[in-house]
Amino acid sequence: MTRPLPPPNSGAPQRFPVVVVGAGPAGLTVGNILRAASVDCLVLETETRAFIEQRPRAGVIEEWAVRGLEKRGLARNLLDRAELHTVCEFRFDGERFRFPYGELTGSHHFVYPQPLLVTDLAREYADVRGGHIRFGVRDVRIHDLDTDRPWVSYTCPETGERQVVHCDFVAGCDGARGVSRASLPPERVRIARHDYGIGWLALLAEAPPSADCVLFGCHASGFAGQMPRSPEVTRYYLQCPPGDAVENWPHERVWSELRERLGAAGVPPLTEGRLIEKRVLDMHDYVVEPMAHGRLFLAGDAAHLVAPIAAKGMNLALHDAFLLGDALVARLTTGDGSGLDGYAQACLRRVWDYQEFSQWLSEVYHGTAAGDPFRAGTTLARLRRLFTSPAAAAAFAEQYLGTAARY
Amino acid sequence: MTRPLPPPNSGAPQRFPVVVVGAGPAGLTVGNILRAASVDCLVLETETRAFIEQRPRAGVIEEWAVRGLEKRGLARNLLDRAELHTVCEFRFDGERFRFPYGELTGSHHFVYPQPLLVTDLAREYADVRGGHIRFGVRDVRIHDLDTDRPWVSYTCPETGERQVVHCDFVAGCDGARGVSRASLPPERVRIARHDYGIGWLALLAEAPPSADCVLFGCHASGFAGQMPRSPEVTRYYLQCPPGDAVENWPHERVWSELRERLGAAGVPPLTEGRLIEKRVLDMHDYVVEPMAHGRLFLAGDAAHLVAPIAAKGMNLALHDAFLLGDALVARLTTGDGSGLDGYAQACLRRVWDYQEFSQWLSEVYHGTAAGDPFRAGTTLARLRRLFTSPAAAAAFAEQYLGTAARY
Repeated sequence: MTRPLPPPNSGAPQRFPVVVVGAGPAGLTVGNILRAASVDCLVLETETRAFIEQRPRAGVIEEWAVRGLEKRGLARNLLDRAELHTVCEFRFDGERFRFPYGELTGSHHFVYPQPLLVTDLAREYADVRGGHIRFGVRDVRIHDLDTDRPWVSYTCPETGERQVVHCDFVAGCDGARGVSRASLPPERVRIARHDYGIGWLALLAEAPPSADCVLFGCHASGFAGQMPRSPEVTRYYLQCPPGDAVENWPHERVWSELRERLGAAGVPPLTEGRLIEKRVLDMHDYVVEPMAHGRLFLAGDAAHLVAPIAAKGMNLALHDAFLLGDALVARLTTGDGSGLDGYAQACLRRVWDYQEFSQWLSEVYHGTAAGDPFRAGTTLARLRRLFTSPAAAAAFAEQYLGTAARY
Repeated sequence: MTRPLPPPNSGAPQRFPVVVVGAGPAGLTVGNILRAASVDCLVLETETRAFIEQRPRAGVIEEWAVRGLEKRGLARNLLDRAELHTVCEFRFDGERFRFPYGELTGSHHFVYPQPLLVTDLAREYADVRGGHIRFGVRDVRIHDLDTDRPWVSYTCPETGERQVVHCDFVAGCDGARGVSRASLPPERVRIARHDYGIGWLALLAEAPPSADCVLFGCHASGFAGQMPRSPEVTRYYLQCPPGDAVENWPHERVWSELRERLGAAGVPPLTEGRLIEKRVLDMHDYVVEPMAHGRLFLAGDAAHLVAPIAAKGMNLALHDAFLLGDALVARLTTGDGSGLDGYAQACLRRVWDYQEFSQWLSEVYHGTAAGDPFRAGTTLARLRRLFTSPAAAAAFAEQYLGTAARY
């Protein structure tokens, strides 16, 4: 059902109601929503399809986001295959503390790696709903945003020639380093930034998991985390200086630090294994306000980055995409522009709420290792409260699961 | 019923099972608990009785603390005269938000100024229970703490001569600048400190209150607060640089800032009046660990200072005093030392929990004025959550009222 594009080297301008820049979870969800309403659009992606379908990314998806995908016909594989997480375990002060958020709230996390979701969304968009998509494009530029007739240009991968696309709206879904955010006039946007001054060494180990759930070790030597992946492979995290070199983390040091930081009374020893991946993630956040300028609307990481501390990034991208897709459909099919007018504000409520929670949780994870006895004391109080106060536990579970108030 | 002391200039050493250094809420409560069990003690206070009974201090007392005083026969006047607070109001983003914690929890704050409580406690101790107390002493020193036979010396106000008191235990209840904390060997204690880098200008205005409850204004220009005192006098607070000079705050500036920071849609204008008191309070915290060394046990501000942000200081002092009084009675009447052995740990659970809450609340009050758009965004999210999430509201109310888990 894929519709033919004009030959990319013809030079003839194309026209689509919407150009979506970026084929991640946000862009492909917007595209799918538009196609379900028979609105034409073109998705432009600088990477190859194989690349985006394999790019390693975690995938903790909140229940409201799963329901939002399901409602739009985008969750079939996810619902079949996602793991349900209902409990996590904190380790601090030499003890283990299970946090059974499933029991506490009746809700849970869906864990479905982002590359699988992107694969599903790309197939549905391009192969089922007949959406146009160009992979491997280069030098995307967005023009005349301030007018009613914006246009996008890019270089064709096959011919190296520039191609021009006229449109009514541009959805900027191209992530933290994309062209969309860079196209906003600097004097019209404010980018609020936060740098945690913390890195995480992300590791994949060829070893079975050391516990049946996500583990968070809050230790004076730094945070450590464990996420089960499969019977053979386990994800670990170790707090490290930002920008640290992976060469500083040989096998012995990694396992020694994991043993120390995840140690607790009565827990079995970690099962060690070969480390098949090591990357350092630096923790920082930003929020772009407003998230729209003229005919360009940002969604996902293009508009806001949230450190992976609380696994909120993909959820915020999906929240944006639902709102933007629905608002574009309303504007282009009925002329109702209210959704677009209120788009940024509606997104930012959830964005700031999740940013606040990520900061709060960062202190839980990292406060005992800050080298400040006062922060260590307040951090341990924050942790202990989760296991002594039902009210504090309920408030935390709601934030952790994203089941809080309407946004 | 006051027992005769030896003449203070006799030079003859005295002996008491317990010497209590400091006649604030903690020291007088410990003294009253000891006397109720017929344990002799001597309270030493450097100020005059008239001074401590008039020293201006706020008095927000949590319900568990009131019940603790009541159980020990120390709350008669308090229960007759305290005001019950059941609601507070936040103002931010140009709106007002009532927080009815009484309705939410069935609990409330007792407001009873500290000088009234100190007056009650001093009368009960000295005039009813026959406790020994010396006011106006100078140069208190604590000796031989590490032995079974500690002693305390001081200079008599009448004669200028040194007096020696032998004892079994010393209760160090002499506040942030007292001799008790200074008597701990520096190598055996750790003082964890936190400086907020914030001051509050505390004001008393000859004006009726501008609202019937406590107000918290969270504004980009800084925090402002209002506490009703009487139909004629109202307490206001204005965030200012730490150590700011009161001369920087003439009448016009004070009222202009109060109007701005407490402004919200639909609220009546502030009722202005002459400012009859202006003081700058610098916000900082500390915690001494351990709270005991040898035969010296610290209680109240001597052991931990908590900035007045959440009005927790007197509550922590009373919590310490209940535990210390009961533990000393057990040790001295039955030989059971377990209460003293566990004293520091039992106190510190609540201390650190309240310190954590004070820091959290400080961000609510001051985060929008930090000059950092990211902190402003997360602070507003934290505030909004209190009024959109019942779970978050319940957790906050519990912390605000001190009704959380057992400590």
